[in-house]
Amino acid sequence: MRDVAERAGVAVVTVSRVVNGLGPVREETVDRVNAAISAIGYQRNEIARSLRPGQNSMTVGLLLGDLTNPFYASLAKAAVDVAKQDGYAVLLSTADEDPEVERRAVGELIGRRVAGLIVVPDQGDHAFLDEVNAHDRVPIVFVDRPATGAEADVVLVDNEGGGAAATQHLIDHGHRRIAIIVAPSYYTTGRRLRGYRKALRRSGVPADEDLVVTLRRGTTEDACAATHVLLTSARPPTAIFSTTGFLTEGVLRARQQLAAPVAVVGFDDFKLADMLPTPVTVVASDTEELGRHAARLLIDRISGEDGPTRRTVLPVRLIARGTGELRPQSQ
Amino acid sequence: MRDVAERAGVAVVTVSRVVNGLGPVREETVDRVNAAISAIGYQRNEIARSLRPGQNSMTVGLLLGDLTNPFYASLAKAAVDVAKQDGYAVLLSTADEDPEVERRAVGELIGRRVAGLIVVPDQGDHAFLDEVNAHDRVPIVFVDRPATGAEADVVLVDNEGGGAAATQHLIDHGHRRIAIIVAPSYYTTGRRLRGYRKALRRSGVPADEDLVVTLRRGTTEDACAATHVLLTSARPPTAIFSTTGFLTEGVLRARQQLAAPVAVVGFDDFKLADMLPTPVTVVASDTEELGRHAARLLIDRISGEDGPTRRTVLPVRLIARGTGELRPQSQ
Repeated sequence: MRDVAERAGVAVVTVSRVVNGLGPVREETVDRVNAAISAIGYQRNEIARSLRPGQNSMTVGLLLGDLTNPFYASLAKAAVDVAKQDGYAVLLSTADEDPEVERRAVGELIGRRVAGLIVVPDQGDHAFLDEVNAHDRVPIVFVDRPATGAEADVVLVDNEGGGAAATQHLIDHGHRRIAIIVAPSYYTTGRRLRGYRKALRRSGVPADEDLVVTLRRGTTEDACAATHVLLTSARPPTAIFSTTGFLTEGVLRARQQLAAPVAVVGFDDFKLADMLPTPVTVVASDTEELGRHAARLLIDRISGEDGPTRRTVLPVRLIARGTGELRPQSQ
Repeated sequence: MRDVAERAGVAVVTVSRVVNGLGPVREETVDRVNAAISAIGYQRNEIARSLRPGQNSMTVGLLLGDLTNPFYASLAKAAVDVAKQDGYAVLLSTADEDPEVERRAVGELIGRRVAGLIVVPDQGDHAFLDEVNAHDRVPIVFVDRPATGAEADVVLVDNEGGGAAATQHLIDHGHRRIAIIVAPSYYTTGRRLRGYRKALRRSGVPADEDLVVTLRRGTTEDACAATHVLLTSARPPTAIFSTTGFLTEGVLRARQQLAAPVAVVGFDDFKLADMLPTPVTVVASDTEELGRHAARLLIDRISGEDGPTRRTVLPVRLIARGTGELRPQSQ
């Protein structure tokens, strides 16, 4: 495919688009690419095969968590869309934070001869993926979190910056007792916690470790229970920063059950956030862009790009809707 | 695989589980299956290949709509889980109601030698799938809707019964002017409309065609706009039955913007329905069961089950939460 691109004087991605009849390409460019293909004598299938000898190169693997989590669903949607534009099919697999399941799923995807892998890695050691990368010559892109022990391209959102922004927003609205609810040992929520601490320190707000709640599981139910404990304690917080969408739902359920006027900022936007009795303030990241960006990086690698590993951090933004703008109340 | 099952005296699915090291199987059964495999001299890959000569039989294709629609996301999740249990990987493709895109996506999946296909079909003619089924010997299961012109197993929910139940619920709460909002030419919403008409007729409530709103697109925005028109008309409805999750969101947005006390029942449950200012009454179907059931039917077919085509209709249930129990108000 690179030969064709070189001969036609266009980018590899353009050749891919022409070959697969997709995407916006000028007619003149199409003609040039087709001429180059004829000259070199490539057929579509030969192009595919030439990318990775012996592999079914027009398929990429996508390994992520539970699709009923809208975060993963929109990530998958975006990755599938980009892959399809370049003529790649997507083999979908899920691992749900279990290192053993993840390792097996990777093995199965490699066994099916994917041309590349997009992985949302769990917390385990990923040195085995370096071997996959080097030995099987299957490029990998990590999304949402880097992987311990493995070197590869990674696309993240600005977790620390978002955590600091959420906390600063609550400080700016007069809060001094701000709790944070964190899912267990996730890379992302760890960084969001770091941002929280940084914002408190910067503003001279004393940290109270009783207000840092680390859950055993990152579920809505556990977050709801933890919020009940916080809000009925002797010295309740006046504000809560919840660090994932699932956790935010739990915090809001407890808040509603107790009719507590506690301020809330959640990390990650969610459907109907603006329609709840008090519309919910969130730090939003562009999940679809995360998926699109990862798919593009991967296809670059499959197409032969072999520079040093790249780390992309996408920005986040605070959306003020109501729960984050509540002033402290004595409870 | 059937030879192995026969020899071991177990079901084909059990052999599949043992071969792939998945699922709960008693040790004694595992031994029996392994003995049968040794006796017959099968290797895992041979088993896979034997299922459909010349095809990569351990992969199934899943073709559905936009994954950011929670309906498709949970359907996909369930199908992937079941497929994985039986050692199948899932190739995911999306078509978004465009017949041309769907046809191309099917072609690409077949070209990748899937052992079977799960398809949420659009409204176009699907006679080409009969050829796929017969000529390529790739079994197909349709989910959520049957496909025009193609004979294959299909798994549906009780759309007509659900539509009647939603409407009857509103009639029971005193409503006579009940509007229905329908997405354009979907099989499912067509059946839900049929249930609506049936319930009105059964209760002797006169039908008013001005209250039957068929949208040009099935989007939240169009449903919101249509609800504005309905609620500000000379003779507004006192209740609205919205026939999909996206439409329900639009109806609720308009309801909130106008502060209108109109009663609402939505088809399909959704996250946070119980947390809105007035909790939302819905007709709920078990979307994950839809996906699981389809995947099981497909794997049966791949494993050699060749009886007549099957049609499964899953039940729905009404969940009363608030918006459906509002009495008629003069507006």
